[in-house]
Amino acid sequence: MQLFNHIVKPTLLLDENKTRKNIAQMVKKAKISRVELRPHFKTHQSAEIGGWFSEEGITKITVSSVDMAYYFAKNGWRDITIAFPVNIRQIPEINQLAGEIQLGLVIESLESLEFLSSSLDHAVQVWIKVDPGSNRTGVHWENVDHIFQIARQTQSNCKLILKGVLVHAGHTYHANSAEEVCHIHNESMNRLRMLSSKLAARGMAGMEISIGDTPSSSLCDDFAGTTEIRPGNFVFYDAQQLMIGSCTAEQISVAAACPVVASHPERNELVIYGGAVHLSKDSFVDNGITKFGLVAFPTPFGWGNPVESAYVARMSQEHGIIHIENGIEKIKIGDLLCVLPAHVCLAVTLMKNYLTLDGRLIHTMNS
Amino acid sequence: MQLFNHIVKPTLLLDENKTRKNIAQMVKKAKISRVELRPHFKTHQSAEIGGWFSEEGITKITVSSVDMAYYFAKNGWRDITIAFPVNIRQIPEINQLAGEIQLGLVIESLESLEFLSSSLDHAVQVWIKVDPGSNRTGVHWENVDHIFQIARQTQSNCKLILKGVLVHAGHTYHANSAEEVCHIHNESMNRLRMLSSKLAARGMAGMEISIGDTPSSSLCDDFAGTTEIRPGNFVFYDAQQLMIGSCTAEQISVAAACPVVASHPERNELVIYGGAVHLSKDSFVDNGITKFGLVAFPTPFGWGNPVESAYVARMSQEHGIIHIENGIEKIKIGDLLCVLPAHVCLAVTLMKNYLTLDGRLIHTMNS
Repeated sequence: MQLFNHIVKPTLLLDENKTRKNIAQMVKKAKISRVELRPHFKTHQSAEIGGWFSEEGITKITVSSVDMAYYFAKNGWRDITIAFPVNIRQIPEINQLAGEIQLGLVIESLESLEFLSSSLDHAVQVWIKVDPGSNRTGVHWENVDHIFQIARQTQSNCKLILKGVLVHAGHTYHANSAEEVCHIHNESMNRLRMLSSKLAARGMAGMEISIGDTPSSSLCDDFAGTTEIRPGNFVFYDAQQLMIGSCTAEQISVAAACPVVASHPERNELVIYGGAVHLSKDSFVDNGITKFGLVAFPTPFGWGNPVESAYVARMSQEHGIIHIENGIEKIKIGDLLCVLPAHVCLAVTLMKNYLTLDGRLIHTMNS
Repeated sequence: MQLFNHIVKPTLLLDENKTRKNIAQMVKKAKISRVELRPHFKTHQSAEIGGWFSEEGITKITVSSVDMAYYFAKNGWRDITIAFPVNIRQIPEINQLAGEIQLGLVIESLESLEFLSSSLDHAVQVWIKVDPGSNRTGVHWENVDHIFQIARQTQSNCKLILKGVLVHAGHTYHANSAEEVCHIHNESMNRLRMLSSKLAARGMAGMEISIGDTPSSSLCDDFAGTTEIRPGNFVFYDAQQLMIGSCTAEQISVAAACPVVASHPERNELVIYGGAVHLSKDSFVDNGITKFGLVAFPTPFGWGNPVESAYVARMSQEHGIIHIENGIEKIKIGDLLCVLPAHVCLAVTLMKNYLTLDGRLIHTMNS
């Protein structure tokens, strides 16, 4: 418990063994499924943790912003897809990056494509963003004409290397079971295969399919037709993924150690120093109850399983309010509790550093 | 519009004139109401903006963490209350601060008080945290015995200077009108005055009352019995405060300029580069619709009034999805939109810097 003696304020703990196991397992899953793993690094945002992926043979990665691409390019990564609709205001930065690495961009409109056509100095890989039903971004999968038009237009410029279609079935995050995740995934896969054959029928053969979300990458088996998967969250998993069924509690490899600052046994509540500026305001709904995280006790080996009936019930700027049914009287002010974040990517952005269980600091691009 | 030409990614714009006016107005309100203004600096988190308060004669401030107290102490502030239940794990830092400045701490349990009694090296001011009905932290206002006990115990140690009771009527943030805010405020004030007279009847006279929330400080007039007010958000205001009625749209002095990256006229939606890592996932509910921010167009003078029927409807890590009823076809990819954040304090934490309308960078403690 020596580690915990030195923690005085909200601290993001990282279990390196569990994290490396999560990486190895997804690498294995990709091999078995015969797809390339191009992991999304927006979850860990760390050059050092990126190195753990290199050790497993990963050479291609996904990021969510031009800045993140810069950070990882600077740290030796040479094949990076920015899986976000291209931000044309950053064309100078994009041109610089494209001169240094194999850069992949995501397009969903002729407008952006025309801009790139006239502004690019170097060749980039182009993925057409397709919306498989999540209603966030992308050309709707049934809009074959428009997808074909973008593909054709891409092929007319030698600096634009057409790769294929890229989707993010983000609606799997709202699923409540492995079955529901795989139902959404299979539906999405069928739509993409249909799209692919329609494009092929028009002479647009060889379009690759890139998909990416942790629930379906973790839980589903049918990747036929897919070239690559781009999950990110699986590196740590979190309470939301546990709820969905993407992982077991033992696989969650990041937790925020937070000091208890107040106790209200009369309403089964503890107050921790650990709020929205540490963990974000992301939440999930479990049996009608909104939860901002789960709660575990520190152990000599890190943290234990989530405490039954305990969860982060409310969140303000620096306060977390924990609901706990049993044993509240045993928890003293100044004790530490470990919070398994609802959404680990946002907690990482806010906390900026990790502390490993052997007391080593790991930096991120925000450190 | 020259300012906007140089913005390539999500950027937090600050209108200095409006901000200074907001400060001056609250200073005036406090003078008229005969209460001391001890503004909460957790909203702006910036030494430079702190200086604008100094210029208005402010010498005492509120912060939400030991780290924030350190930052402002280093920047010349000599009277700081940490309005958060004392985190006893940070006693070495607290002792150091208390040796350098007039430090105020917030207590809500005998447990914390006993720890402080035996661990403090220097005198600190003690505020007893009272819960006026918001159910976050504090001793319930009706629990006079317990409050009296803490007060008595505080007086028995010469390093603990008993100041009075401190409340945060955080439930005003859920109000939907000025009337509702002032109803909650008046109820809270009545409870505190009742508590105060009960304590006085037991010989505990002269207890000060410190209250603090932007809605009631902005909207209400009855501060009889109150010594100080500690609002923070009013320095910038935000969409949530506009909804409550604490401010007008013209008073909101911070907005995030975000590039448009995709357009989906078929569902009245735009996608901006500007998501939960820039603006947080905080939201408010307006007529049954959850909104993560309001939307305004850039103007030669900053930004205009919120666009009618437009709002940030969904938010993922880097994406903001904007719902807009009219004129979507006039907005091009690469255009900038200004988002008035739902909760500006969290946006400031995430964005780390401000850009003034004359193009000057202002740092925060997170820069």
